[in-house]
Amino acid sequence: MKNCWYQCFNCREKYSSKFIEENLIYLCPKCGSTDKNQPLNGVLEIFYNYSSIKEKVDLNVFLQQQPGKFWNYPYLWPIISNENGIHNIENSDLNKLCLNSNNIIDLDIAQSKIKIFDDSKNITLSYKDRASILVAIKAKQLGISEISAASTGNAGSSLAGICARLGIKSHIFVPKNIPDGKRIQIQSFGANIYIVDGDYDEAFDLCLEVSNDKKWYNRNTAFNPLTIEGKKSSVYDMFIELNGKLPNYIFVPVGDGVIISGIYKGLKELLELGWINELPKLIGVQAEGSDAVVRYIESDTFKYSEAATLADSISAGAPRNLYMAAESIKKTQGRAIRVSDDEIITAQQMLAKKGVLAEPAASASLAGFIKLKKSIPENIEDSILMITGNGLKDLSSLEQWNKSFEVKTYQEWCKELL
Amino acid sequence: MKNCWYQCFNCREKYSSKFIEENLIYLCPKCGSTDKNQPLNGVLEIFYNYSSIKEKVDLNVFLQQQPGKFWNYPYLWPIISNENGIHNIENSDLNKLCLNSNNIIDLDIAQSKIKIFDDSKNITLSYKDRASILVAIKAKQLGISEISAASTGNAGSSLAGICARLGIKSHIFVPKNIPDGKRIQIQSFGANIYIVDGDYDEAFDLCLEVSNDKKWYNRNTAFNPLTIEGKKSSVYDMFIELNGKLPNYIFVPVGDGVIISGIYKGLKELLELGWINELPKLIGVQAEGSDAVVRYIESDTFKYSEAATLADSISAGAPRNLYMAAESIKKTQGRAIRVSDDEIITAQQMLAKKGVLAEPAASASLAGFIKLKKSIPENIEDSILMITGNGLKDLSSLEQWNKSFEVKTYQEWCKELL
Repeated sequence: MKNCWYQCFNCREKYSSKFIEENLIYLCPKCGSTDKNQPLNGVLEIFYNYSSIKEKVDLNVFLQQQPGKFWNYPYLWPIISNENGIHNIENSDLNKLCLNSNNIIDLDIAQSKIKIFDDSKNITLSYKDRASILVAIKAKQLGISEISAASTGNAGSSLAGICARLGIKSHIFVPKNIPDGKRIQIQSFGANIYIVDGDYDEAFDLCLEVSNDKKWYNRNTAFNPLTIEGKKSSVYDMFIELNGKLPNYIFVPVGDGVIISGIYKGLKELLELGWINELPKLIGVQAEGSDAVVRYIESDTFKYSEAATLADSISAGAPRNLYMAAESIKKTQGRAIRVSDDEIITAQQMLAKKGVLAEPAASASLAGFIKLKKSIPENIEDSILMITGNGLKDLSSLEQWNKSFEVKTYQEWCKELL
Repeated sequence: MKNCWYQCFNCREKYSSKFIEENLIYLCPKCGSTDKNQPLNGVLEIFYNYSSIKEKVDLNVFLQQQPGKFWNYPYLWPIISNENGIHNIENSDLNKLCLNSNNIIDLDIAQSKIKIFDDSKNITLSYKDRASILVAIKAKQLGISEISAASTGNAGSSLAGICARLGIKSHIFVPKNIPDGKRIQIQSFGANIYIVDGDYDEAFDLCLEVSNDKKWYNRNTAFNPLTIEGKKSSVYDMFIELNGKLPNYIFVPVGDGVIISGIYKGLKELLELGWINELPKLIGVQAEGSDAVVRYIESDTFKYSEAATLADSISAGAPRNLYMAAESIKKTQGRAIRVSDDEIITAQQMLAKKGVLAEPAASASLAGFIKLKKSIPENIEDSILMITGNGLKDLSSLEQWNKSFEVKTYQEWCKELL
């Protein structure tokens, strides 16, 4: 048996993997709650026996791993493996889940030399694949053949695509304002789609009720602890690709707060393992119209306010993983920053001019970098910006600033150009 | 100096690299021609001193290369290198050009167990990046800072994206029927776009004239011999990823005929190097409404006919690289197959249900496989399908079969599902 267990983020109660997983428990049985327009309470974290891993695994050997295939070091994941590989999954199926392995690019941008971590070339072109993959592997190991998720778009299209690769049926609950590109991705992958005449909260609640009734495995973000755990994988990919040398600052777009929590989890583990000596600072970037985490850090209180931003992937009035996201920022001596939609679009344009087509939410990383650089005296060039979704997933945002073009005849162009 | 030279595909005249490259010559100076509505004549191929490479490079060492970084074995490319790396290009710039390195996936599809080579996760999400990268590297080496291309969409968005990564100015000439997604990609990357009120042929001619006048380096497909050469890189990636064991059949969507010619070039080289013993059969797949290569192979004559297919990336009335494409198929004992637009869309749906979102042209590979499997008695399961572009590059094709969806209230869904 694997040496890992679950622990409640809020009340710190511990549970065995067997108990949580076999009973399809998601939030803490003691204090978990999913109240409307509130962050989740009782989100579970997974812990391992790090001192035992530290003894068995040599850092230099670990750094020989290939990025994008986290199941090759199963001791850092809640998955069942033995000498023959991953239990209940064929190697050819794992091969279908490989992520991009050349993610890090040097960029000369905003009068700075920084790096991006480009997660927009994954299987369904977003960071969300990291969570979907771990959830899908777990479903296979539990013998469950249907998975559900509520989503504003990317998590749903991700789960639909990953499930299609493994022959698992997926059920996706979305609010009616989902961008066309994301809806069409979900439908194309053959998922069942349930479009709710309401907001993400209603889709979330509906998904929970129906999944519970039908015994579908649920991938709702933060609610299923494996979503946070899957999202820690970028840290290991980054650590391997940078040969053990992490940057000082990591800029992360924040909506529900699960990506930043996953990144923090991965960083904490590297520290526990003794593979790094200090934590990079996490800079959480939110849209002005969806800034609950920033407000929580400023005032230590949560107040629901309807989200309004064109960066749909980070639009969350009640961030599901608010408390853990806030801790990620505080414990790394990081910052929470708000940027306007205009700043996000400017950043999207700047990235595109460097050959990186990012969706608005993903461009928030750069907008946050620009803002922080202006406001503090320190040199923050040792930074990585997380690029969490491809621009083509939301064509309308790109169309906005590429509306104008001229059509001319051959003769007219000749006259103008020659 | 590198031991490589150029040779005309038609008249077989040889030229030195220095002469061709420094004078910005594209087609054969003796017999080259770019007549309207005709395939190009005098396309140049690049050859190397294979026996010398064979002596110096051990196959098993070569197989340790990482896919997606062809500049790491510069002796197989017309690029200038020395012990310090690639001349005139920083390593950090090369790093921006890395392609996906986990391309091959096993699929259980159409009652067969086959493989796909998924090139839809490249920098601009299409196969065309392979050509654009080599052209851009050459431009850097020649000290040229502006590159042009005529395109129906993917080649243009590819060149625009690759140039943006390297800080090179790009000029893209397109016909007015370009899909919105591809136009918006080109504009987003900051290219100059020239939309011609006419067809691809007119865009092609206009691009040649203006580029010649302005001394822009030209990436027109087949016209610039490096487009064919760049497209051979998939063969090396495949060879490395499959550890030296190529499949019996490779299915390739064919429009202008440059991808299939590039693949043939790579295969011929592996044979010359003694690293494979026989050539896989190349199966060229065309849309019924754009089938000039199929007709040429059947009748040995070319007759222009206006192309009409929804698979815009393989829509070519006069395939620029017709003669080389036909030879690729004949010399490998392959086949040329036509498939209907309906068969292409059915294949697109089948791939999506397996979690692979391909644009229509890319789906033609599977449509061709299904057709060939029905028509010949041999077992053709040892096949790889080339997936040459991402589905999100042409959302309208996906939208066609994902138009219908239902929006219901929370209460209505509860009533239906619980």
